[in-house]
Amino acid sequence: MAKRITDSTPIRDGYFMPAEFAPQDGVFMIWPERPDNWRDGAKPAQAAFCAVAAAIAQFEPVTMLVSNAQFENARARLPEAVRVVECTTDDAWVRDCGPTFLIDGRGGRRAADWRFNAWGGLYDGLYFPWANDDRVAQKICELTNTDSYRTDGFVLEGGSIHVDGEGTVLTTEMCLLSPGRNPDLDKHAIEKMLCAYLGCEKVLWLKDGIDPDETNGHIDDVACFIRPGEVACIWTDDKNHPFYEQARAAYDALSRMTDAKGRALKVHKLCLTKKPCLLHGAETIDRVAGSIPRESGEVAIASYMNFLIVNGGVIVPQYDDENDALALSQVQAMFPERRVVGVATREIAYGGGNIHCITQQLPRA
Amino acid sequence: MAKRITDSTPIRDGYFMPAEFAPQDGVFMIWPERPDNWRDGAKPAQAAFCAVAAAIAQFEPVTMLVSNAQFENARARLPEAVRVVECTTDDAWVRDCGPTFLIDGRGGRRAADWRFNAWGGLYDGLYFPWANDDRVAQKICELTNTDSYRTDGFVLEGGSIHVDGEGTVLTTEMCLLSPGRNPDLDKHAIEKMLCAYLGCEKVLWLKDGIDPDETNGHIDDVACFIRPGEVACIWTDDKNHPFYEQARAAYDALSRMTDAKGRALKVHKLCLTKKPCLLHGAETIDRVAGSIPRESGEVAIASYMNFLIVNGGVIVPQYDDENDALALSQVQAMFPERRVVGVATREIAYGGGNIHCITQQLPRA
Repeated sequence: MAKRITDSTPIRDGYFMPAEFAPQDGVFMIWPERPDNWRDGAKPAQAAFCAVAAAIAQFEPVTMLVSNAQFENARARLPEAVRVVECTTDDAWVRDCGPTFLIDGRGGRRAADWRFNAWGGLYDGLYFPWANDDRVAQKICELTNTDSYRTDGFVLEGGSIHVDGEGTVLTTEMCLLSPGRNPDLDKHAIEKMLCAYLGCEKVLWLKDGIDPDETNGHIDDVACFIRPGEVACIWTDDKNHPFYEQARAAYDALSRMTDAKGRALKVHKLCLTKKPCLLHGAETIDRVAGSIPRESGEVAIASYMNFLIVNGGVIVPQYDDENDALALSQVQAMFPERRVVGVATREIAYGGGNIHCITQQLPRA
Repeated sequence: MAKRITDSTPIRDGYFMPAEFAPQDGVFMIWPERPDNWRDGAKPAQAAFCAVAAAIAQFEPVTMLVSNAQFENARARLPEAVRVVECTTDDAWVRDCGPTFLIDGRGGRRAADWRFNAWGGLYDGLYFPWANDDRVAQKICELTNTDSYRTDGFVLEGGSIHVDGEGTVLTTEMCLLSPGRNPDLDKHAIEKMLCAYLGCEKVLWLKDGIDPDETNGHIDDVACFIRPGEVACIWTDDKNHPFYEQARAAYDALSRMTDAKGRALKVHKLCLTKKPCLLHGAETIDRVAGSIPRESGEVAIASYMNFLIVNGGVIVPQYDDENDALALSQVQAMFPERRVVGVATREIAYGGGNIHCITQQLPRA
């Protein structure tokens, strides 16, 4: 049912990645468990993933991919409405290792299956090996009977791109030009690949993300499209905030950009946490060669921008921070037609990402 | 999406197991791989499973459950039309460890999830442990969003029962009364469980099956319903055939039986192989404590009865035996409205079963 297409490209076949705000048939997630990334044997993270799954399941179907070892526990912990399907992975970031689903606007749905190398491979990747993660996209395509384009040489994570569904891709140089991704391709060649596999015409480049050491600056902590011609971007007035400079630079750059349709972007500000979110309890994280060590006191990458848009809703991270309510009200103002739901996700930030990183939407064909 | 129902029974809720000849939405299989059961690293068996999957896929969708280790190989070997989904198992007998799907005739579909103990548990089971197999039914129910009745204490394998979908169950005493199944229940209590969970009224008991040492005499090597009021039964005139006595006894017993509707059964004869099917090449089977050893020269359980009925077709084992063509013509005569397809499956018989044992149909709701 699920073909691997290697002799064509999505753009040639009329397929494109729809915006996240387009209608969806459901969301995939992966159950966290590796004790060398998540503190306390991943139990607090599992509780947070359950809360995220429950929040999304109010709006649309959720499928949780779970290892055989954790199958029974995940099934027992998750709401009944969540479907649990076995899948071996290397960690829990389906945004980055899962497929990028594409549609053709005429009832067809396919997917791009990028090469995944754990955010930098042997250059500066976060763990080794990553072979199970690199098979996740294909497994989801099999599950959903989706034909896929396997971009064999080309490394990309879903968290490093946002699209408006109308020809524009937004990304960062810090990530896509990093030596751990596609060192043999220059910026122009990468633009060509993005356009061919996302069905786009124009690539908007921000310079930096906020986590050079983890994802090498994924866009999904910095900015995203909220509707055609409009983006949200992180913002703070606090010059001492660890993300102040990157936020300002992103905001200024976006404010000068036009999209594929020639529209000047309208940029909405989204606050950052008042205080940096600092990792606690890192001493319970297993110490394993090949995984980057985490230490208590490190700045966790806690961005309200890492929300997920679902049918009729937006699921927004909350960090037990003074600005939590402000972030919710700002997101609600951006999406007056959707119900905004906050979920406490410090534990997910401790592991290196948040709600957008741990979800992958299945757009409606 | 998939509830576990423990406070009711199928018969109370109006659910029953439909006959195999009722319409189906698809078939599940499990990829064989354990080298202590299948010769030559399971490679010949994998080829035979591919042929069976391809034959079924001509008629209806097939989902192959595969371990993570064999995922890529299975995907590469199987026809594109077959969906491949990860699932950890202990071996490849989804008839026995999978769910028994039930319908209510009003659009509803549920399942019975029996306890599985590898054909006899610690008494005379064929391998240990079997915990992965015992989770297969639940995993298939999750995949298909099917609510299931978990019969916690009650051990049953799908291969030990056949139903006519009109109130009758056919089974064997050799299996269901064996000390390795439900030693605390007497025949009457077992009848009550079968009727409650299969939505039946009458249990027809044959005495013996043909493989006392493997499945303890599963019915699906001996007889099956081919339509309401009619059964097929193995038959041979050769008194030296290893299954001569059991075949005669089954035929005679069935010829005297009436079903739940009071109909005297019409019994169709199905030949056995001319020559016993003897295991070859057992020296390449891994030797592992806890698995029953296999030896070259053993009689493999090769029965033409172990066919699978699918939408518009019947998939029938072929053993490279003089009676192969006769078996096909007899099955064709039983099912004039279906296309009969033979598949060479000696390798599957070497592992202890055949086409019916390695498949589980999903009836149409």
